[in-house]
Amino acid sequence: MLKIILDHRSIRNYKEDPVPDSVLQEILTAATRASTTGNMQVYSIVVTTETPVKEMLWEAHFRQNMVKQAPLVLTFCADFNRFNKWCRLRKADPGYDNFLSFMTAAIDALLASQNCALAAESHGLGICYLGTTTYNADKIIDVLNLPEAVVPVTTLVIGYPAESPELTDRLPVDAVVHHEKYHDYTPRDIDRLYAEKESLELTSQLLEVNQLETLAQIFTRKRYTRKDSVLFSKKYLEVIEKQGFMNNSDEPACR
Amino acid sequence: MLKIILDHRSIRNYKEDPVPDSVLQEILTAATRASTTGNMQVYSIVVTTETPVKEMLWEAHFRQNMVKQAPLVLTFCADFNRFNKWCRLRKADPGYDNFLSFMTAAIDALLASQNCALAAESHGLGICYLGTTTYNADKIIDVLNLPEAVVPVTTLVIGYPAESPELTDRLPVDAVVHHEKYHDYTPRDIDRLYAEKESLELTSQLLEVNQLETLAQIFTRKRYTRKDSVLFSKKYLEVIEKQGFMNNSDEPACR
Repeated sequence: MLKIILDHRSIRNYKEDPVPDSVLQEILTAATRASTTGNMQVYSIVVTTETPVKEMLWEAHFRQNMVKQAPLVLTFCADFNRFNKWCRLRKADPGYDNFLSFMTAAIDALLASQNCALAAESHGLGICYLGTTTYNADKIIDVLNLPEAVVPVTTLVIGYPAESPELTDRLPVDAVVHHEKYHDYTPRDIDRLYAEKESLELTSQLLEVNQLETLAQIFTRKRYTRKDSVLFSKKYLEVIEKQGFMNNSDEPACR
Repeated sequence: MLKIILDHRSIRNYKEDPVPDSVLQEILTAATRASTTGNMQVYSIVVTTETPVKEMLWEAHFRQNMVKQAPLVLTFCADFNRFNKWCRLRKADPGYDNFLSFMTAAIDALLASQNCALAAESHGLGICYLGTTTYNADKIIDVLNLPEAVVPVTTLVIGYPAESPELTDRLPVDAVVHHEKYHDYTPRDIDRLYAEKESLELTSQLLEVNQLETLAQIFTRKRYTRKDSVLFSKKYLEVIEKQGFMNNSDEPACR
């Protein structure tokens, strides 16, 4: 178990071999055993394997090749639709059209996704998470016909690896851990915790290619710019509202 | 690996035995191997073991006994504070004071939390997630001294189990899985998918005790009411804003 967790690499090149149905079933069953708030299971997993749908998802994920290449694309959604329908059919008024419910459902979806990732890896499969899910959630909703009360939160591509990358560097464990309470970072702490990352050969190469002075600038000016973050913040908040999770009032929304 | 995932039970009663430091270190290392957006690792884990701090967390988590009883309380936070500080010390302008960045960081925190949960369980420890983290995030921020750009998202209590509960029921796997695209549920689908849950002995007992007609009403009227969801939605959105994740404009916030 720990070995699977510690050996994780994101895989971005996949073989064509399909994932056997029995393996897919085990992965999906693993997802359903994750903790879920109040055992409500307010998430859904959309499993896409067919080329035409995958091509539309590929567009939504900024044409990252692996979306077309990997045999499985799993979209994890915050989903109160099923639960709300059940409530309405059982003389119960579901008060889950608000932001807390979105967060509850997103947490359910994300814990299930990590169970899927590890179950897949335990079968020798490779996985990669697609952060682009929150960027173009509106397009993914259109492609997958997601109804009200369903919002995509993350995506996994899964398949047999056609590459074996090195383990990715991480900050020292004590960079992310605080004991008893949060102890804020001094400039000296930051220097120490980022020293290894900044001294990597990969970092020197990135600075050379991008003609920038610091690794942090590669993040702020190239990879995750303010302009993009602001654009996608607005879009994702609109999606959350449009899907019916922003009625933060005591009355049911009129729909 | 799969066995650990499939055998998961939430544990709500713990022995007093402390968790050895070497085991805690393995659990925390497991957390840091989870996928993280752009390898930014924008999360933090606050490990609380001391009684006075745990007692304050216990208050914030609606006095659930296990918060005091379990030797470890791990609070998982969306955290751009460390990354922002690094950027500012490296002549880079971090544009991460917006909602997308909160979501990115929350996703990081949640994937790390599930790695922790499974690593703990692989060591024979029991775990329970505390959904109350998003309800009283403001109080948790005060107790743990969380600075700007840090928001608690979930909590794990961890310790040696003093109970061995049955596996919890789950909806059939096909209740949460959709093939190719989302296929919305008909009333007949809902009846079929919830039939087993509704026929459990536990359900009959709950209806009897609560004097209610349907299981769904136990959720909407007792466990997760609209009134509470609305209250905690407002509070959590205020926390996200107060911690500096709602400047969805192209200009840095004036602080």
